[in-house]
Amino acid sequence: MTTTQTPNPIPRESARPTDRLDFDTVTDVVVVGGGGAGLPTALFTRWGGAEVIVLEKAEQVGGTALKAAYWYWVPDNEPMRAAGLHDDETDYLRFVARLSYPARYDAGSPTFGLTDLELRGLRAIHESASPAAELLNERGALPYRHVPDVPDYHSELPEDVANRGRVLIHRDAAETMHDGGRVTTRSLAEAAERDGVDIRLRHRVQRAVVHEGRVVGVEATTADGTPVRIGARKAVVFTSGGFTHDDELRRNHLAHPVFPGCAAPTNEGDFLRIAMPLGAQPRNMNAAWMCPLPLEKTVARRPDLSGTFTMVGDSMVIVNKEGRRFVNEKLQYHEIAQSFFRWDGEAAEYPNLVSVCVWDQRTAETAGNDRFGSVIPAPGSEDTAHVIVGETLADLAEQIRLRFEKYAAHTGGARVADDFLPTLRNTLETFNAAAHAGEDAEFHRGERPIQHVFNGAVPDDDHGANPTMFPISDTGPYYATLLTGGTLDTKGGPQVDEDARVLDDSGEPIPGLYGVGNCVASFSGGSYWAGGATLGPIIAFSYRAAASITGSVADSVTGEAAASR
Amino acid sequence: MTTTQTPNPIPRESARPTDRLDFDTVTDVVVVGGGGAGLPTALFTRWGGAEVIVLEKAEQVGGTALKAAYWYWVPDNEPMRAAGLHDDETDYLRFVARLSYPARYDAGSPTFGLTDLELRGLRAIHESASPAAELLNERGALPYRHVPDVPDYHSELPEDVANRGRVLIHRDAAETMHDGGRVTTRSLAEAAERDGVDIRLRHRVQRAVVHEGRVVGVEATTADGTPVRIGARKAVVFTSGGFTHDDELRRNHLAHPVFPGCAAPTNEGDFLRIAMPLGAQPRNMNAAWMCPLPLEKTVARRPDLSGTFTMVGDSMVIVNKEGRRFVNEKLQYHEIAQSFFRWDGEAAEYPNLVSVCVWDQRTAETAGNDRFGSVIPAPGSEDTAHVIVGETLADLAEQIRLRFEKYAAHTGGARVADDFLPTLRNTLETFNAAAHAGEDAEFHRGERPIQHVFNGAVPDDDHGANPTMFPISDTGPYYATLLTGGTLDTKGGPQVDEDARVLDDSGEPIPGLYGVGNCVASFSGGSYWAGGATLGPIIAFSYRAAASITGSVADSVTGEAAASR
Repeated sequence: MTTTQTPNPIPRESARPTDRLDFDTVTDVVVVGGGGAGLPTALFTRWGGAEVIVLEKAEQVGGTALKAAYWYWVPDNEPMRAAGLHDDETDYLRFVARLSYPARYDAGSPTFGLTDLELRGLRAIHESASPAAELLNERGALPYRHVPDVPDYHSELPEDVANRGRVLIHRDAAETMHDGGRVTTRSLAEAAERDGVDIRLRHRVQRAVVHEGRVVGVEATTADGTPVRIGARKAVVFTSGGFTHDDELRRNHLAHPVFPGCAAPTNEGDFLRIAMPLGAQPRNMNAAWMCPLPLEKTVARRPDLSGTFTMVGDSMVIVNKEGRRFVNEKLQYHEIAQSFFRWDGEAAEYPNLVSVCVWDQRTAETAGNDRFGSVIPAPGSEDTAHVIVGETLADLAEQIRLRFEKYAAHTGGARVADDFLPTLRNTLETFNAAAHAGEDAEFHRGERPIQHVFNGAVPDDDHGANPTMFPISDTGPYYATLLTGGTLDTKGGPQVDEDARVLDDSGEPIPGLYGVGNCVASFSGGSYWAGGATLGPIIAFSYRAAASITGSVADSVTGEAAASR
Repeated sequence: MTTTQTPNPIPRESARPTDRLDFDTVTDVVVVGGGGAGLPTALFTRWGGAEVIVLEKAEQVGGTALKAAYWYWVPDNEPMRAAGLHDDETDYLRFVARLSYPARYDAGSPTFGLTDLELRGLRAIHESASPAAELLNERGALPYRHVPDVPDYHSELPEDVANRGRVLIHRDAAETMHDGGRVTTRSLAEAAERDGVDIRLRHRVQRAVVHEGRVVGVEATTADGTPVRIGARKAVVFTSGGFTHDDELRRNHLAHPVFPGCAAPTNEGDFLRIAMPLGAQPRNMNAAWMCPLPLEKTVARRPDLSGTFTMVGDSMVIVNKEGRRFVNEKLQYHEIAQSFFRWDGEAAEYPNLVSVCVWDQRTAETAGNDRFGSVIPAPGSEDTAHVIVGETLADLAEQIRLRFEKYAAHTGGARVADDFLPTLRNTLETFNAAAHAGEDAEFHRGERPIQHVFNGAVPDDDHGANPTMFPISDTGPYYATLLTGGTLDTKGGPQVDEDARVLDDSGEPIPGLYGVGNCVASFSGGSYWAGGATLGPIIAFSYRAAASITGSVADSVTGEAAASR
């Protein structure tokens, strides 16, 4: 799960649009970004008959998707239908409306309390994710297999009727599925090359070219600073990712003071800056796809950082700086991560901002692995700098105290409480009693189906009623790591419509401008419906953007460039 | 505390800038908005020698400030100095940095972990709030008296050294200070008229006029739809308030799904839409000045809505839909309001979104009042539609259940738990024991100085150790009201520098464009330092904007307008 950080990043310049029309190249469609949204968009537009150039800032394609399992969540997909599973549109809408807009979901309203645009956006996913997946499959770009048994992340909600079977994955991904992003990226890129998509690496798009109110191209700079102007006869589609790696944007927009997460290092909010002067309206800016993160790797800005998707191990707990549990450790990653940002208005602090995952030798041996960002390393792993070790619990607590101090300048001065050790002892005693009983009265660990997915394989000696809990050993060694929360990527940006057209402040499309993926406002609000709920909608909107663009016969490039081609 | 809602609001049009230079009028400075930021800005620029036109969208001046007590928080103010209180700049910076950026405050760093711009913005308040207050005082626009004894809202923090004495208020405000906003607005408006500021009501600014990259005027529409173009030789200063009353902006930016609060109904985010196409960068968009609100008044969009600043009464508790306490009822309003938006990731809901304030006959009689948005009405008040009454606790619980159901379409379907009544009984029993003991072990009610300010006057029969708590009566009648949280106003918008100049994506000022108040990004992050921490900095930045503008000799209006004057 390693990737290379972009060497010598190409500097950002002013994002103000230009009206210079002397293009170096003119094509039909410029796709900005060659990741999980860019490659499908390039393929669908190419298949629609367009000439396509992809401009990718990094030295490789794949973006954040390279690190993903590349599950894609496809409601009403073909394998479901083949298995006789009905995924009704209204039921689907009810479920995603309930989760995405929980404070205004209105069960009794035909719109479920949503705006017309929100409803159209959500409906588009149900309508187009499956045809998009089928087309990618048919043309060999993304042959899939069905993952029939994984439940949605809130499958217990009564609104979630067709609550499993919506996940697809590349046919050739490993059994563990952790290599799905690499396998899928390779597969999509090979199809793009096969079908004549022109992919140009190390091109940073700096601004749009606008002519008479229409986006007709972009200006980019290459690795050596050379400006390149590319005209687009039909459309420019941004698929350039969120703003995970722009400190200023993250701090000034997201609902929580998160740490930078595991998105591709090139995800710096470029589209936001480029689109606002064109009249685009930022929406869903408070939301992100969230995940626990090992504190030390995010502070170090490790390019190989992965979100901690699975909090494995049964003899394991998470405690805060007081030494108390505060969250169900097997909750879905998106929800655990938010618990780190609970605000204490009395003390004016985030008491869980830096938390501690504690485990014993048994879990180190039975649950440790290097997949899906597990913070409990595989036995023998060399990636253990984030692991704190103590022969006794007292040793461990002292090492934890020192580690908090080492990072205090990055954490608002978070320090462990003076009585951390005795509190931790009490916490473990209570947890062990709960593990014996198989019931976690306080945090309900293991009570829902999805939690067993995140729990991972159950060790042979865990015969208890609740395989997510096992007493933590009375004897050392013990292990710990500091945890916090961050983004997989953000999910706010310019408002788009159900065909991925970027809208202005009057709700009208900005001619020639589209956006797909984490660079635009997601229709999912602050929620994370299921594994693959990131990429499934992305595939749907890639498909719809392409249909909207290639169905058009407009040829809008004017001036010298048009004359010269 | 009533105001009139704007009749027949002037419709919003496209905010895209224009380059039409055929102005109807040309002046030196156009101030957009005539509220708590606009009037001081108009005065300071006028006093700097500029010809000034104020364009106010409503039919009256005052904006949100009309509803305020108009405390203004002035660090290192003259009365403090006269009393020998030293308010050191570094101590001040430490305090506001610690509160405003709690997750990255770094006590050991000379910048306290802040960016250079953040530090300059905070320093500007310390430097200029007092000179601004003195000038307003000297010229009779805002003669003040000192409020020496009110502590800051987190005065217990070790970083808060000069932790009281920073509040000023209009000299002629009542003893209770609740009329401060009306008194101050009148006073500022009279000074503006006296000194020749041209105030034009019912003018909605729709867009900026831009010439060669400089903002040289605005286009407005009047109540009857007439377009008016006004040129500005020196600058346009927006002071048009936040986006409290724009549902879409509120939902897509703020950290919490808040209800619309008590800002002036004209606060609809106009500046954000107008400034983004000019290159402005939205910042601090996740933050608001927050307050509890009576649910029913905010759902009804009552123009006379006030935030509930003081949660008065000792025999009173706040419980959630389960019937449990979850917050210290005497916490500062900004913090109580946030507790309503605690997210439960397990149930995927906001369990405290609709909460219930419960009180007895004794508190109704001894604490009820109609000031500062108290939800416990003054005896004899006619404003009681939001009050639920029950002769017994069982009656009350049943009425609460019905009231939740009545509002379910506005609250994501919030309903009281089946065992609400027995849980409420337990809660009251526990609370009463705590009140007898004078100690609230769970929520620490009454432990900090500021909580006694919000508690209000202590009834004669409350002789306990803790005057914020008194046992709730064993016999009815009982009273309740549904509470939620919202904004006084938002505090995000275009990024400005320490002189209120609006910055572009390269960090350069956009020539001719300034912003002051809730329409721009506050330097206070998500925090609320003290009473008057809204208006004190506003006065400082009004003053600095004026100094920056009137110190300039540039005359940038060109074309026909310049020729014709």
